[in-house]
This record gives sequence, structure tokens and C-alpha cells, in this order.
Amino acid sequence: MGIDEVISPADARGSSPGKDQQAAGVGILLQIMMLVLSFVLGHVLRRHRFYYLPEASASLLIGLIVGGLANISNTENSIRAWFNFHEEFFFLFLLPPIIFQSGFSLSPKPFFSNFGAIVTFAIFGTFIASVVTGLLVYLGGLMYLMYRLPFVECLMFGALISATDPVTVLSIFQELGTDTNLYALVFGESVLNDAMAISLYRTMSLVNSRDSSGQNLFVLFVRFLETFVGSLSSGVAVGFTSALLFKYAGLDIDNLQNLECCLFVLFPYFSYMLAEGLGLSGIVSILFTGIVMKHYTYSNLSEKSQHFVSSFFHLISSLAETFIFIYMGFDIAMEQHSWSHVGFIFFSILFIVVARAANVFSSAYLVNLVRPAHRKIPVKHQQALWYSGLRGAMAFALALQSVHDLPEGHGQTIFTATTAIVVLTVLLIGGSTGTMLEALQVVGDGHDVGSPGESLEGDNDLLAPNNGYIAPSYDEETSSANKIKMKLKEFHKSTTSFTALDKNYLTPFFTSQNEDEEDEHDEPRPSSRRAGFRGHM
Amino acid sequence: MGIDEVISPADARGSSPGKDQQAAGVGILLQIMMLVLSFVLGHVLRRHRFYYLPEASASLLIGLIVGGLANISNTENSIRAWFNFHEEFFFLFLLPPIIFQSGFSLSPKPFFSNFGAIVTFAIFGTFIASVVTGLLVYLGGLMYLMYRLPFVECLMFGALISATDPVTVLSIFQELGTDTNLYALVFGESVLNDAMAISLYRTMSLVNSRDSSGQNLFVLFVRFLETFVGSLSSGVAVGFTSALLFKYAGLDIDNLQNLECCLFVLFPYFSYMLAEGLGLSGIVSILFTGIVMKHYTYSNLSEKSQHFVSSFFHLISSLAETFIFIYMGFDIAMEQHSWSHVGFIFFSILFIVVARAANVFSSAYLVNLVRPAHRKIPVKHQQALWYSGLRGAMAFALALQSVHDLPEGHGQTIFTATTAIVVLTVLLIGGSTGTMLEALQVVGDGHDVGSPGESLEGDNDLLAPNNGYIAPSYDEETSSANKIKMKLKEFHKSTTSFTALDKNYLTPFFTSQNEDEEDEHDEPRPSSRRAGFRGHM
Repeated sequence: MGIDEVISPADARGSSPGKDQQAAGVGILLQIMMLVLSFVLGHVLRRHRFYYLPEASASLLIGLIVGGLANISNTENSIRAWFNFHEEFFFLFLLPPIIFQSGFSLSPKPFFSNFGAIVTFAIFGTFIASVVTGLLVYLGGLMYLMYRLPFVECLMFGALISATDPVTVLSIFQELGTDTNLYALVFGESVLNDAMAISLYRTMSLVNSRDSSGQNLFVLFVRFLETFVGSLSSGVAVGFTSALLFKYAGLDIDNLQNLECCLFVLFPYFSYMLAEGLGLSGIVSILFTGIVMKHYTYSNLSEKSQHFVSSFFHLISSLAETFIFIYMGFDIAMEQHSWSHVGFIFFSILFIVVARAANVFSSAYLVNLVRPAHRKIPVKHQQALWYSGLRGAMAFALALQSVHDLPEGHGQTIFTATTAIVVLTVLLIGGSTGTMLEALQVVGDGHDVGSPGESLEGDNDLLAPNNGYIAPSYDEETSSANKIKMKLKEFHKSTTSFTALDKNYLTPFFTSQNEDEEDEHDEPRPSSRRAGFRGHM
Repeated sequence: MGIDEVISPADARGSSPGKDQQAAGVGILLQIMMLVLSFVLGHVLRRHRFYYLPEASASLLIGLIVGGLANISNTENSIRAWFNFHEEFFFLFLLPPIIFQSGFSLSPKPFFSNFGAIVTFAIFGTFIASVVTGLLVYLGGLMYLMYRLPFVECLMFGALISATDPVTVLSIFQELGTDTNLYALVFGESVLNDAMAISLYRTMSLVNSRDSSGQNLFVLFVRFLETFVGSLSSGVAVGFTSALLFKYAGLDIDNLQNLECCLFVLFPYFSYMLAEGLGLSGIVSILFTGIVMKHYTYSNLSEKSQHFVSSFFHLISSLAETFIFIYMGFDIAMEQHSWSHVGFIFFSILFIVVARAANVFSSAYLVNLVRPAHRKIPVKHQQALWYSGLRGAMAFALALQSVHDLPEGHGQTIFTATTAIVVLTVLLIGGSTGTMLEALQVVGDGHDVGSPGESLEGDNDLLAPNNGYIAPSYDEETSSANKIKMKLKEFHKSTTSFTALDKNYLTPFFTSQNEDEEDEHDEPRPSSRRAGFRGHM
């Protein structure tokens, strides 16, 4: 670095823009190198079928190691500043592409045919998990087992730690090939679950920051529902708007490709920021924008733009995902932690395991109550679901936010515990998912997901059309119906009627293709479409 | 916005993260809306062949108008903070994709066959322009015509105001179709000229910040050369590294698309940050990385990745370009300006017109000295070049930086003058380029650039192969040779021998295709390749 001493115009003035820019350069350079290393390492490990260190774990480890080295050596603070985990950066720039891609890559058929189960797991189950975790942590505090937190703060911790991360588990599912329904359940649950966890966290945080007198549970529930439904509606509305725009603007001619893609790429972000600007949840909103845009807007694009936007969102979300794990690892290695509360960490790990069990098995019981015999969720799938609840960036980011939201000490304890949980679950669960899937014998059992990465692309159908397990048939087993079951069935029926609504009204209205084309489009095509821009990381 | 009052968790605490995030949401939302508006407006204007308000001008105007409205209404400061023009953001995130795309979309043949002329205009010409502007401003100060600045600061102003912006002019050239050589000259000059201007600015800024005793012109020149050559070499080295990586890594198989694209996309940024981290010029570096990656690395990609990365960089740079003009307009409307120095603005506009003339006509004279009769640059082309020197974001960003670098008042004056020059040249020159090109009769004269947007894609050849105007032939007109001419000819010859070197050694070494394929690849293909991801914005 001899040259920079000579040429940097700002030497004489200490920390002037030129110097800052150079520090930024070094910081970003380091990040890019770690990204490249992660991609290459992940690729090599996958190629040698070494499933004990999935890509996310590798990225986390790289971040931890480089962060540790930077911590030992006395790196300049100006460079270090480029590595602090800023929740704002995470929530505004890294998270949106990932969540959008989740929605965008969702295969509508397995998702909607398991919609009832997914919603039960994500909404009801996450609620159960949050409350159980919160209660247990509170009781643990009362019994002097662990650091004592106020009840509302326990519930906040319960909410944030209930946000599961699908990245690693799903990538292994794809590698090994697993049952389509299990895949749809895990994927759907983890996507919706984030939205639920963040809404719960915010509601609890609201209770905590306000004078909680005069707030009853019902008002809270209504407010939570407002956020959730409001965000969902705004996301769907933006999605439909985009569908109409692309249907009528006539941009699908050849030399307007770039304009078409620019506008398409701006919509998801628009949806996210609209919701955030309205004080709603951007994550819920962009997720549903993704689903709607894939289902309607996508088919209004020219074929080349379709290829491009699929690859584009895949690329951006891969970069963001890998970056998040590196970034998290680096920050964990750099941040000050209060390791005085080892008890808190130990018991909270125990509690989340229990809470996850309460979530999965009770939700599965409810779902199985209403499902016909041949469609019940097998115990092995329930165990796989229970096992696959590793915690990732969402929990980390919310915990970091809690450091600002909560009084001195409390937030720090929650943050340290979350950090430990994230690192442990990513490394342990991530590394053992392959073994677990094999032990439970849910690997490659006929309905495998196809070649790696394909299922994330979404325009191939996860299901063989003759798979009876999926097609909902509601005219059986009505004998043992009780009240809950009836309610649940009604919900199920609304799902089916949604499919009809979609087919008869929404698709013709929002897309320019006719129904037959649309159906054909949903079928797996061995030739051109499959050979499209695809691949896995 | 009733809901946000209810649900935002942070109400009770003033400006906590939740509130900040909401403000960020509103700010970014506004920016996205302006982006969409710009794209749509630009599209509509182009469609109706209304060339008096090109896209860049439209974006600038939208930014100015919205900024003005935001200024009148009392917008919250937290939202406003999202619109301040941060040079760091500009230099680290907006500029790299644009400059890379400049290099990446360069058509190698017309660029290299006009290489001597382009280098003359960009290096020698920009130097002349900077010095002439600086001198005139200094003399104007001495003669009490305008605000008086120290000599070195005048030279800094001269350097920053000599950075021309090609966006608008080139987009109109593409629309109307113009001579390929004129296009190559304007494009090549404006691309290299930025690199030259920023290097000059930094060198001058270095002189200014240091005790300038003991610094002679020669040392300065050596330092400038160090930055320039160092940046160029690091950029080329990164480009070659990427070529070798993609040649041997074997990523061009179908399901590794995403990995391939991720790595490809990271390289340019790596090059930029490497140079910045070393205290060199990231802009020069990424420009040459772009040229090298297009020429060598690109052909090692799988065909689908080729389509994807072309579209990707086109998309990203379109977004960045449009955003910069909006952002600049908004900031101009919001910023405090010192309009007390109207004289300074008036005379500096006069001086840059004179300096641009000195640049273009003297460089053209030198180039014509050495070129054979049928290849001389016609006077009309010189006039078009002279006219097309509008100032854009680079000058603006450097001027903003000078506010930090220079003492109170001086930087402000330079900034205000630059702002005025940018707005005037973008609106006036941008609006009248079409008329000018028609008046000079250089529009669509046989060698037109093809359908709009194509030339920016770069993989079609701008030249008909039988165009004798281009192919350098050095065995004529040696009678009137004088010393300068001989030197210049040697330089020209080195360009030719570079072509041979490239064909015989570099291309076989760095790419996996054989030479014939490479040649075929360079020819314009009417079918698949031309129909690729293309379009203009």
C-alpha cells in the first residue's frame, strides 16, 4: 500500500472523504472476496457431496473466521465500520430481494394445495411457539434458572426467536430430493413464518414501549390483524397493478426489453417501501407481491424478459443470502457479547426445541383432523419439520433491533442468546439435515424435486399430475366432523374456491394469455423452458 | 397514514429505528416513483420522436420539480435525509455500474481503430481543456470579472468541469443514427475523459492540500501517471484473471448458470474496490476491466449467461443513470446555493465553451496531421464533438466533493457554478442535439448505427467490413512527416500491433474458443444474437 500514501489527496487532513472512500474500498473489497470464496467453497463442497457443511454454514464460518482475524489484528476503525451489521441495511436492502424471491419462486400448485396446512403451521404454529417460548423463559426467570426478563420482553424474545430460516434446509432438500409435500410445507411455513414473527415482534414491542394499561389482548389482536391484512392487501394490490400495467402497456416487443425489465424490477421494491412507508410490514407485502407477480404479471412479459427476470431475482437473492450469512458471522465475531448469562443461552435453546415441538405437532394434529386419511401428514414428515427449524438472519436482525428497543442489559442478553442460537442451529442442524432426512427415510421417495435448483425456479410443476395425495377431495370422512373440523374445512373450501376464482376470473383479467396457454405453461416442459436460466448455487 | 400512527412501535420514543425505517420507506418510495415516472415519460417522449426533452433531461426535471415541491412543503427532515446527494454513495454504488457498462458495451473494432484519436481527445484534449478553463478563470479573477480563486483551485475547477457526460448525446446519436466513427469518437472520448478528469482533479487536490513547496510539475506528472497506469493495470489484471477463471473453472454447464453469473457480476466491483483500496482510481480500473471482460471473459461464458450478463449490466446501468439525474435534480432543488456570484457562473460558462473548442480543434488538428487523407476527421464531426460536451453527474459529484476539500466559500462557489452549468448544458445541449446533428448533416449518412440500442450492446460490429475509412494503412503520405507526426505514427502502429498481439496470443490464451469462432462472433449476425436481450432506454 505504498501508492495510497503518496497519492491520496486527503492525507494531510486525517479523515476526509478521500480517506473514507479508501477505507470503504478496502471494506467492500474484503466483503466481495468473502462472497467469492463462499460461492466457490459452496460449489466445491456440493460437488463432492459433502453435506455436513452447507453453503450457509460455510458462509457463516468464513465470516466468523475473517471477523476473528480482524478482531485480533488491529484493523482500522474506518474499515471496521463497513462491517457492522446495520439493521436498516438488512431490512431495506438485503431482505427484500430474498423474500420476494421466496414468493416469486413458489410453485403455486403444491403451495395452494397445502395452503391450509401451511397457514396453520405459519400463523397458528408460530403464535404457539412464540407464546410457549416466552412463557417458558418467563417461568425460567421466576425460578431463578436464568436471567429474569419482564413478561412482555419474554414474549418479544419468543417472537423473534420463532422466525425460522429455510435457506440451508431447503437447499439440502433440493440436493437430496424429497417429498414434494414436505418440501412445500417446509418452504411455505418458513416463508410465512417470518412475516408472522416480525408482526408479533412489532406488536409486542408496541405494547412494551407504550403505557400498557388500557390495552387488552383483543385490541392487540386487532392491531396485529390490521398490520397483517393491510400489508397483504397492499402487496396483492401492487402485484395486480403491475399485472395490468404489463398487460396493456405493450412493452413485450423486442427492443423494449430493457424498459420492461427495469419496470418489472422496480415493482417489488415499490411494494416493500409502500408498506413500510404506511407503517405496515414490508416483508408481508413483498412476499405477496412476489406470489401475485409470478402468477399474473410474469406471463405478460415477453419470453426473453421472463428468462431474464427469473435469473435476475435468483441472482440477487443468492447474493443477498450469502452476504447475510457472511455479514452475520463477521458481526458476531466483532460485536461485544455479554457471556455472563450462559444459563440463559442454555435454557433458551432447550425452550425453543420444546416450543418448536409444540408448534409442529399441535399444528399437524389440527391439520390431520381435517385431512382425509391418504393425505394426513405422516409422523416422519412432522419430525422432519420439527428438526428443520434453524434460526437465521431474521432472528438475528430482530435481536439486534431489540438492543435498541429494550433497556440496557435486557436487549444485550437477548442478542447474545440469539447469536448463540443462530450459530449453533446453523452449524448443527445445517450440518446434520442430510443425515436426519436419510434417517427419517424421507429422501428421494419417488416424488423427488427434480434436479437441484429447479424447484426454486417455480415454473416447473412440483407435482406429477397423477399424484392423488395432493388433489383435495372433500367428500369423504365427513362422519367424524366436529365443530373445529367444520370450520377448518370451510377454510379449506375457500382455498379450493380460490383456485376456481383464479382460473375463471383473475387469470383472464390480469394476464394476456388465454387459459389453455396458461395451463400448458404450468406443465413441466422438458425442452426449452426447462433449459432456461437455471441452476443452483 | 392513520395506521402508522397506531402500529409503529417506536412512537413513544421519537426517532427510534422503527420511525427511521418508516421515513426511509417513504423516501425510497418517492425515489422509486420518480424512477418509474422517468422511464415511462422517457419512453413516451421517444415514441413520439420528441427529441427536445431526452430522458436525462426529463429525469433531471422530474428531480428538480419534486425537489422544489418538497422544499416548499415542509417535508420531514428524516425523509429529506434520504435525498441528499452523498458523494460516497455516488462513487461507490451508482458510478461503478455505469462506467463498467461503458467499457463492457464498447464495440472493440471502431474503438480500437479510432484508438489514437480517442486517446488524443481524452488525455491530451481534456488536459488542454482543464488548463485553459483553469487559466481563464484565474485570469477572470485577476481582472475582477469574477470571484477570485487561488490558481490551484482554478485548476481543480477546470479539471472537474472538464468531465463530460455522454448519456444524452449518445442516446440521441443512437436514435437518429449517425456516422460510426463520430459515434466511436464521442463515446470513447467521454468514457476516457471521466477517468482523466477525476485523476487530474485528485492530483490538483493533492497539491492543494499539501504544502506545495518542493513540488514541481514533473513530480506531479509522474504521480498522475502512476495513478493512471496503476489503475489501468489493476483493471486489466482483474479482467484477465476473470477470463482465466471462467476458462478453466468449467462453470458453463447448464445448472451452474447462477453461480457463473454471480461470480461474473462480482468481478467488476472487485476491480473497482481493489483500485480504490490501493488509493488508485476505481473508475479507470473498472472501465478497463469492462473492456477486457467483454473481449475475453464474455466468450468463456455459456450462451445463456452471456445473454443474462449483457441484460443485467444494461439494466443496472440504466437504473443507475436515470437515478443519478433524478437524484441530482432533487439535490439541486434542496441544496443551499450562493447565487451571489452570477458573474462567476456566466463567465465560467463562456470559458468552458472556449476550452472545449481548444480541446476539440487542437486534438483534431493533431489527429489529422497523422491520418491519411481519406481518414481525416471532417470539420463537421469536429463541430459535433465540440457541441456534445455536456456536463453531468461526474462534474456534479466532484464539485460536491470540492465543497469538503476547499475552504469555506470557494467550494460553495464552484459547486453553485457547476450546478448551473450541469442544468443548463443538460437541458439546452440535450434538447438541441437532434437539431444540431441535422444542421451539421451528420445524421444517418449511410454508416448508421443500426436500430436503437444495438450499438450499446457491443456484440454487433459497428462497421461494415468493407469500410476503407477505418482500416489503418500506414504506407501513404510519409513525405510531409515531421517529428511529432512520426511519434504519433509510432503510437498508431502500436495500436495495430496490439490488434495482432490480441489475435495471435491474447485471445487464444484467455478464451476457450478458437480464433475462427471469435471472428465469426464479431460479425454482425442478423438472427439469434441480434435478437438477444436488447433494447434501449
